[in-house]
Amino acid sequence: VISHIDSLFQLVDFLGVFVGAISGGLMAVRDTRYKYDVVGVVGLAFATALGGGIARDIILQKGPPLAFVDVRYLVLALSGAFVAMIFAGRMRGRAERVMVLIDAAALGLFAVAGTTRALNAGLRPLPALLLGGVTAVGGGCLRDVLSGRTPRIFEGGQLYAIAAVLGSAAFLLSDRLGDTREVSTIIGTLCGFGVRSLAVMYDWQTRPVRSQD
Amino acid sequence: VISHIDSLFQLVDFLGVFVGAISGGLMAVRDTRYKYDVVGVVGLAFATALGGGIARDIILQKGPPLAFVDVRYLVLALSGAFVAMIFAGRMRGRAERVMVLIDAAALGLFAVAGTTRALNAGLRPLPALLLGGVTAVGGGCLRDVLSGRTPRIFEGGQLYAIAAVLGSAAFLLSDRLGDTREVSTIIGTLCGFGVRSLAVMYDWQTRPVRSQD
Amino acid sequence: VISHIDSLFQLVDFLGVFVGAISGGLMAVRDTRYKYDVVGVVGLAFATALGGGIARDIILQKGPPLAFVDVRYLVLALSGAFVAMIFAGRMRGRAERVMVLIDAAALGLFAVAGTTRALNAGLRPLPALLLGGVTAVGGGCLRDVLSGRTPRIFEGGQLYAIAAVLGSAAFLLSDRLGDTREVSTIIGTLCGFGVRSLAVMYDWQTRPVRSQD
Repeated sequence: VISHIDSLFQLVDFLGVFVGAISGGLMAVRDTRYKYDVVGVVGLAFATALGGGIARDIILQKGPPLAFVDVRYLVLALSGAFVAMIFAGRMRGRAERVMVLIDAAALGLFAVAGTTRALNAGLRPLPALLLGGVTAVGGGCLRDVLSGRTPRIFEGGQLYAIAAVLGSAAFLLSDRLGDTREVSTIIGTLCGFGVRSLAVMYDWQTRPVRSQD
Repeated sequence: VISHIDSLFQLVDFLGVFVGAISGGLMAVRDTRYKYDVVGVVGLAFATALGGGIARDIILQKGPPLAFVDVRYLVLALSGAFVAMIFAGRMRGRAERVMVLIDAAALGLFAVAGTTRALNAGLRPLPALLLGGVTAVGGGCLRDVLSGRTPRIFEGGQLYAIAAVLGSAAFLLSDRLGDTREVSTIIGTLCGFGVRSLAVMYDWQTRPVRSQD
Repeated sequence: VISHIDSLFQLVDFLGVFVGAISGGLMAVRDTRYKYDVVGVVGLAFATALGGGIARDIILQKGPPLAFVDVRYLVLALSGAFVAMIFAGRMRGRAERVMVLIDAAALGLFAVAGTTRALNAGLRPLPALLLGGVTAVGGGCLRDVLSGRTPRIFEGGQLYAIAAVLGSAAFLLSDRLGDTREVSTIIGTLCGFGVRSLAVMYDWQTRPVRSQD
């Protein structure tokens, strides 16, 4: 059973990188401020798909980032960039909805995976929670900063970073309560995935913090 | 005496992180280009308060950044973010002047602390000076880049980065002249603090470098 | 012969950092959106000249970045910044063309040097290729992001990142075919230099990827 679950985690991880690359590439193709060429599409796809994990590994300092060690991540990110370039016109409607779902699953898994790595490196729960969040949303933030704007997750809108943090928190709670890592990972991922999916379905939004000045 | 001085350094360090988080959070609350939500306020507060130290530790590569190891930094940064959100309307006048003073003290201390860590890691004085500057101003730079703009310290205005570099230089000079680390730290911190405070008081400004084209 | 070649590599490396700093400083002096002061000019010069190598070393995690260990890099970058400030008005016409040539040579060498370091750290060819590209173009990207805009290399225009990647690829191919590191380095650097120079001479441009929406 465990090996099946591990395969499932691996699948979600890979799909998340692939879908992240597509969404980063699409954002480049559709950008109206800048006219991105192939370098820009690949660059923004890589940043979106791999940025969070690279940030996580640079912070943990346990050797080169996984994205540079396991070559499959680069291959997936590159494939996603080319899918975005070739099929940009058709990535509407159902395809986009499927991508949102996969992205939600990856959001949950990335958050939990970042938190797990942090715990393994000896960090305490609060920093591990933060690192889970960084892993899950870091790629999108890097993509936005590289596009010359503030991270979208910083602005009022549908729950995203909060879903990641809740997923990490659920994982930490389950871990603290004595569940095995596999069970905690499933619970945390499902929690992040669930909150994000519900936020999309029912349009749960965060309010902008207004200045009282 | 030494333990008292260490406690004082620790206090300035903690206050600096707290005030940094408040100022980053306030900037998010008051931003007119983007409508930040709670994630944005916390994100910009964290970036401002912890960005410089994280950059320093990532460059020195002696293990995970202090902000991820000593959980008090995260707690302080989080508290600062919430203070900014709740008291944004009252953070004017005297409160703001107190924050500028604390920030000036932290500017001096962060610069010296970054330089000290660089020397301890075996770096030579010039790189240690640069790393002191990065530690002191890196958080504000990260905040500005995450807000989709150039770092404010890069533009003409009241001395800031230069105060940090002068503080580091005073520390290095004192260290080179054979003073103990405590004495050098006090001298360097006071120098950075003094230059920055005087710049605020007497409005010492840097001139924009003008193109002769 | 080998020691002569090593000296040549070192010369191109140093010249590349120096010219990178000048070009970053000039961009700051000539910027029309922001009014940079001396801190901004030095900051953007450092980012341009040293950013790529620092990114490479932070990713490889083999100790502090070379730019912080070998003090000559900082001295060169600082000199370049001051040259930009003092001679900004005269950096037109022939001086600019010479700088483009030196930058093209440095582009090739930086790409190959990044790939070499990646191979030495045990990375496989594809990540090593990416790291070569990051080393060669990372400084310019950092400069652009610090200027509040998207990296210029992401936009349609004269081949730049592609020249770096082709140089790295030529190096990897030559290395795989059994050439010595010196020969492979020369081939890779000349390839990157050649493609970039020809792109400038004949105005080879990448096309913007257009959205079919």
